[in-house]
Amino acid sequence: MCDISPSWVTVNLGAQSYRICVGPGVLSDSASYANLPGAGLAAIVTNPTVAALYGEKLQRRLASHYANVLLIELPEGEEHKNYVTMEKIFDRLLRANGDRSTTLFALGGGVIGDITGFAAACFMRGVPYVQVPTTLLAQVDSSVGGKTAVNHPLGKNMIGAFYQPRRVIVDLDTLNSLPKRELVAGLAEIIKYGPVSDQGFLEWIERNLDALLSRDEATLAYAVTRACEIKASIVEEDEHEAGRRAILNFGHTFGHAIETGLGFGAWLHGEAVGCGMVIAASLSANLGLISERQAARVIALISRAGLPTKVPEISTDRMLELMRLDKKSQAGDLRFVLLDGVAKAAVYPAPIGAVVRAIDQHR
Amino acid sequence: MCDISPSWVTVNLGAQSYRICVGPGVLSDSASYANLPGAGLAAIVTNPTVAALYGEKLQRRLASHYANVLLIELPEGEEHKNYVTMEKIFDRLLRANGDRSTTLFALGGGVIGDITGFAAACFMRGVPYVQVPTTLLAQVDSSVGGKTAVNHPLGKNMIGAFYQPRRVIVDLDTLNSLPKRELVAGLAEIIKYGPVSDQGFLEWIERNLDALLSRDEATLAYAVTRACEIKASIVEEDEHEAGRRAILNFGHTFGHAIETGLGFGAWLHGEAVGCGMVIAASLSANLGLISERQAARVIALISRAGLPTKVPEISTDRMLELMRLDKKSQAGDLRFVLLDGVAKAAVYPAPIGAVVRAIDQHR
Repeated sequence: MCDISPSWVTVNLGAQSYRICVGPGVLSDSASYANLPGAGLAAIVTNPTVAALYGEKLQRRLASHYANVLLIELPEGEEHKNYVTMEKIFDRLLRANGDRSTTLFALGGGVIGDITGFAAACFMRGVPYVQVPTTLLAQVDSSVGGKTAVNHPLGKNMIGAFYQPRRVIVDLDTLNSLPKRELVAGLAEIIKYGPVSDQGFLEWIERNLDALLSRDEATLAYAVTRACEIKASIVEEDEHEAGRRAILNFGHTFGHAIETGLGFGAWLHGEAVGCGMVIAASLSANLGLISERQAARVIALISRAGLPTKVPEISTDRMLELMRLDKKSQAGDLRFVLLDGVAKAAVYPAPIGAVVRAIDQHR
Repeated sequence: MCDISPSWVTVNLGAQSYRICVGPGVLSDSASYANLPGAGLAAIVTNPTVAALYGEKLQRRLASHYANVLLIELPEGEEHKNYVTMEKIFDRLLRANGDRSTTLFALGGGVIGDITGFAAACFMRGVPYVQVPTTLLAQVDSSVGGKTAVNHPLGKNMIGAFYQPRRVIVDLDTLNSLPKRELVAGLAEIIKYGPVSDQGFLEWIERNLDALLSRDEATLAYAVTRACEIKASIVEEDEHEAGRRAILNFGHTFGHAIETGLGFGAWLHGEAVGCGMVIAASLSANLGLISERQAARVIALISRAGLPTKVPEISTDRMLELMRLDKKSQAGDLRFVLLDGVAKAAVYPAPIGAVVRAIDQHR
């Protein structure tokens, strides 16, 4: 990958603006860390698997910027994405005399990024943090845009904050160590950007899916950079998800219900979102917002990627119950991000009957 | 008090601007609630003592604005100002199908206000909340300005957010039910505004202290309104405490160390701040920032108010250790808000020797 030079994407949010650096080897490149706010203490928050692969490398890199660099390892998996886990970060920071300049580095996937970002939002009412995503899913979605959260026993991402990172450092080399299943899960969030907002990107993915699955370096670099660009432009328009940003949750209402229903960790987030997009595409067609052909095209791509397209063993009643807790729902009425044209989506209320039918179509 | 009409103070923070309504009986006046964002669900967060006094009254008032009004009672006292207590709010909101429009009402003192504000900041990444402070301390300080937090075993207010309320409703009638000890504690935060920023107000307090202590209605109304005005103007200048806002923490570094050192709940926050201001005034004089006479004047007023001026049984070493955890400290160096003129203050680093001497002067 050495002949691919890093690309920079800017997220323009006034005083909260920041840049995303995408490229092979950028984790070890001092240019990636230029102009971050100074501090005596930095903390790398990660999990044991990622720590073994990249922990020391990042710690060495940061040692030239910070007098003291902690390595904080959190237990792995979505089932640990809760307040109790987050409190371990606070304990370590306070014991090391952390202050308001202490800078956190989230080294890992979406779970690490979400917990670390929320910890940064809350510690002493807000300290700087940097996302260093090491999974495809985190690189193309969760590390960009400042949505941070932990789970509550009654629902996913219920407790959190909008809190932007100071930088996102996307080292594409980390994808080489990613298990195939996680690579495929990440593809779900890449595919998402096509149907909801970018017809050209949808067609590009259709043409390049095999190259992505075989981890072709240049193809992955383009996909990740383009995904970050699309995400940045949507976040710039609607940082706090008052409107348009919600389209990035295409497939997520069904997906979250699947994740919670199966118990966190049974399916990967991207897998649940893949299946959720399948149901949401069918629901969009059932309601006449798009044609059956358009829905079938989206479903075919998800299936080709190797993502699950069959709803797992959760009763439809249980799924409905879980979806009523979704943050888009209003006074208990279900609302979904649905496709309503080519590369177009919006939030719609949907009658229970149509929702049930869309789920049952994919049993 | 019926002849005192409500006064409104505006906190100008752009899109986050809000108004403070101060007056007797405003809790029951529908004008106080005009133009709050609409929602199906509201929740009053309070404690058993305040609930018995004002819970039903507020619930009745809100019933005309919201279809469903929950009453959430939290255990009383600073020792419960933690995440576990806050989670009770999330549980109730989620079980009642709370959504992103759900509005929280913090009915009580500083503990209730801080927990409820932080819960509002985090629930679904942010929902509206209204402060309805019922203690003098909360009315003149903690309910205004959007500082929210819970405590961590290693330090007070370590975990929190800057998150502004949509309104502050200050019903002066609630002061009638306030125990004398809490009234006096609240005076500490009123007195604070004088030495740090307003010579005229300092002189006014000196002249009117007896009337405040005897709960003269008009005198309390003026003191609360003026305190809110001063706080609003400082918060407008520096919402996130990058600079000047820190002066509002005069006496608080010593005060927090006293609170944590004694165990939460032994002294009231205002009592600890009163004693903290005494030490900070002496430290300011020891460092030559103000004259001994100026320090003595501040200390005399705190003493006349009936606030503690003697440092309690906590070793000086323990106090130093606790103060190193203060959010103003940098890389373990102690920093304090110190008086540096008449009605003027700023954050200063201070040599350990001078700090020790200031503490020992008040043993």
